Amino acid sequence: MHGEIIAIGDELVSGKTVNTTSSFAARKLFDSGYSIRRITVVGDDIPLIEDCLHKAIERARFLIITGGLGPTADDITNEAVARALSLPLRENQQILKKISECEQHHGISYDETFRRKLSMLPEGAEVLNPEGHAAGYMLMHAGIPLFFLPGVPNQLEDHVVKQVIPRLREILGAGKSVIQKTFKIFGLSEIEVNARLSMIESRYQGLSIGYYPNFPEVHVTVTLKGESSEETRNACSDACRAIKHALGLYVIAEDNDTLESVTGRLLVERGAMVSVAESCTGGLLGQRLTDVSGSSAWFDRGVTTYTNRAKEEMLGVPHELIEKHGAVSAEVAVRMAEGIRRLSGSAYALSITGIAGPTGGTDRKPVGTVFIALSTPEKTKALRFFFPGGRDKVRTTAAETALDWLRRNLTDGSYIPGYKPS
Amino acid sequence: MHGEIIAIGDELVSGKTVNTTSSFAARKLFDSGYSIRRITVVGDDIPLIEDCLHKAIERARFLIITGGLGPTADDITNEAVARALSLPLRENQQILKKISECEQHHGISYDETFRRKLSMLPEGAEVLNPEGHAAGYMLMHAGIPLFFLPGVPNQLEDHVVKQVIPRLREILGAGKSVIQKTFKIFGLSEIEVNARLSMIESRYQGLSIGYYPNFPEVHVTVTLKGESSEETRNACSDACRAIKHALGLYVIAEDNDTLESVTGRLLVERGAMVSVAESCTGGLLGQRLTDVSGSSAWFDRGVTTYTNRAKEEMLGVPHELIEKHGAVSAEVAVRMAEGIRRLSGSAYALSITGIAGPTGGTDRKPVGTVFIALSTPEKTKALRFFFPGGRDKVRTTAAETALDWLRRNLTDGSYIPGYKPS
Repeated sequence: MHGEIIAIGDELVSGKTVNTTSSFAARKLFDSGYSIRRITVVGDDIPLIEDCLHKAIERARFLIITGGLGPTADDITNEAVARALSLPLRENQQILKKISECEQHHGISYDETFRRKLSMLPEGAEVLNPEGHAAGYMLMHAGIPLFFLPGVPNQLEDHVVKQVIPRLREILGAGKSVIQKTFKIFGLSEIEVNARLSMIESRYQGLSIGYYPNFPEVHVTVTLKGESSEETRNACSDACRAIKHALGLYVIAEDNDTLESVTGRLLVERGAMVSVAESCTGGLLGQRLTDVSGSSAWFDRGVTTYTNRAKEEMLGVPHELIEKHGAVSAEVAVRMAEGIRRLSGSAYALSITGIAGPTGGTDRKPVGTVFIALSTPEKTKALRFFFPGGRDKVRTTAAETALDWLRRNLTDGSYIPGYKPS
Repeated sequence: MHGEIIAIGDELVSGKTVNTTSSFAARKLFDSGYSIRRITVVGDDIPLIEDCLHKAIERARFLIITGGLGPTADDITNEAVARALSLPLRENQQILKKISECEQHHGISYDETFRRKLSMLPEGAEVLNPEGHAAGYMLMHAGIPLFFLPGVPNQLEDHVVKQVIPRLREILGAGKSVIQKTFKIFGLSEIEVNARLSMIESRYQGLSIGYYPNFPEVHVTVTLKGESSEETRNACSDACRAIKHALGLYVIAEDNDTLESVTGRLLVERGAMVSVAESCTGGLLGQRLTDVSGSSAWFDRGVTTYTNRAKEEMLGVPHELIEKHGAVSAEVAVRMAEGIRRLSGSAYALSITGIAGPTGGTDRKPVGTVFIALSTPEKTKALRFFFPGGRDKVRTTAAETALDWLRRNLTDGSYIPGYKPS
């Protein structure tokens, strides 16, 4: 059931655009039991595309070709396919109709080049979604389905889910059954996670454990592929239990959950809300908490007090305290958290103040120094951290650490974050 | 000067991890005048890696192979290379030394498998950065340099910039000169941008214009490659001028600038600061403004008033106003912007209140309805927008539109944002 992806576009081989679409397609296919063996990325170059098509057709059971279907001069996929497979290009009535509808809708008129570019498809092409806007199509060639999909992410995603996978089921039959479980870990490095799990991997045969750094987290995937007997399913559950045991509270979320969705659920369970006071993260912590739909049930408010005056005026941090300890200090972090907790009346509050860099560091407080405070109905505690990396990484790790600290506190009442304080 | 990239890893072909590293390498090489013709992604499969290596060596002037150099069982690049090129594996003393240092530093002891996995390199391998932590290496084969690099993003990036490009210059000579200019556009679709620029593309020979949707922006790249005479350089400047003229204020930034860095500079120029009041974006607007180092010079503070009570208490939005018009309304947006402007004393303020979804929409205010207000020393104005797409897209477009509105106002004093109000 192995397929291949060919992604076409100068923007991909020149590194201008990251190839997220191939990853999306590969993941959706994998989850449905069809896997991708090879992804080839080439520029807008007809002979090169021809070569890739020929070779892939010899190897794969199905092919997905993305990009180069648009109306601009560099869109040459149709021409390359026609040449590679010796097929004439024919005007497609469904696409012409869509173009007219689009013209009417927007009150514009496309020129003939544009119209021809979009509507001339290789003979035998079946438009995948005649109702939709993007003209992905399927061609059967030597018994192999070739799917030509638009390169624009949301159009491609829609085609993969609604068109490609259902058709693969019809043509190739159901994919192999796959049991897959993902654990998201924060606070341990990839090597540390690996060290804790290496014994488990060897204990269960037929299971594969993958380690994927996903900054600032490490994701661990347990995969069981093939005929799933009750025995193998039990082995998988056993292995997952063993992994959770080995990693304990370092597991921040499983599968589609995230640190913020898990934290939100813990807050809802105890009917509590959280508010945040940020400085160097500039709103990132609030943004993450509100990434989750329904977050109004647990997130009350946030302030980003970037200047000292804002810290004093909005959160009541005493001027003298900032003078004495500096804005980046445990004392100020505590007052920020307590300030927003008092203002909001939330049960929980988090604050972050630090030096994200690249400027602003000193010998005693180098770039990467961040103080985080957690204020709960019991007490307020601030810790000093040192996060390595550039501005982005410092901010990302700071927000993650703050969220993780709250999650741990809501789980076992402790005041120990996953990332070790410095 | 064409090279190829081979990226190795099950996590890449299964779509678990997006292949950002190949894009990074390709872009850096392109900017230095070496370009990548093909990127091949394969899983941890020795025969497949062998096959890819053989074919790529026949075609390319240089090769970059990423991933599979780590200590875990699925790291098999060294073994595949040894087989493909019929080279014995030899213990590398530099790497052994690094492992010992690492053990001392962390107070741990690695097992023999780990040590062997990392230190056995194909004969002739030259470690690229003996001082660093990751063991990338170079092998000369049939006159072609093969660079084997770690797959972890920051390690790879460091290797490409500091090791690969300088060595390519030594081995292959300087790359072709490249003049490249990027324009970032917001408020026009890819088709609209293309329609405005299509005449320019045909007017200048030898220039290529690329269109890259980069949600919510469209990026346009002008590339001039080859021997750069004064004539071609002038043609490039002319074309860039024509592009800027055709797109006007829709160009939000050029090259490495971003909407936020440009907006920040405009604020600094007039010695003004901005503050923000957010609801559905949850801190995203503040986060974007503070993405730029030095943003403390123009960003004063932000509040995220997620609940109605927070809007009343922190920003002084009257309770009756919310009752009458709803929290998502022009009236509330105006009061939010004026509230944060008064609190902060900033010359400029932005506010956003909307329905990001997927729940919370009504017939009169469906998901995607967002009110944005801009408050300046002259006046406060709110506009109603409808942003399509899911929660993420609504939030991203809302923050971008607010920033863009401020940028335009600081540029020409108008109160017209790039994204059309609904």
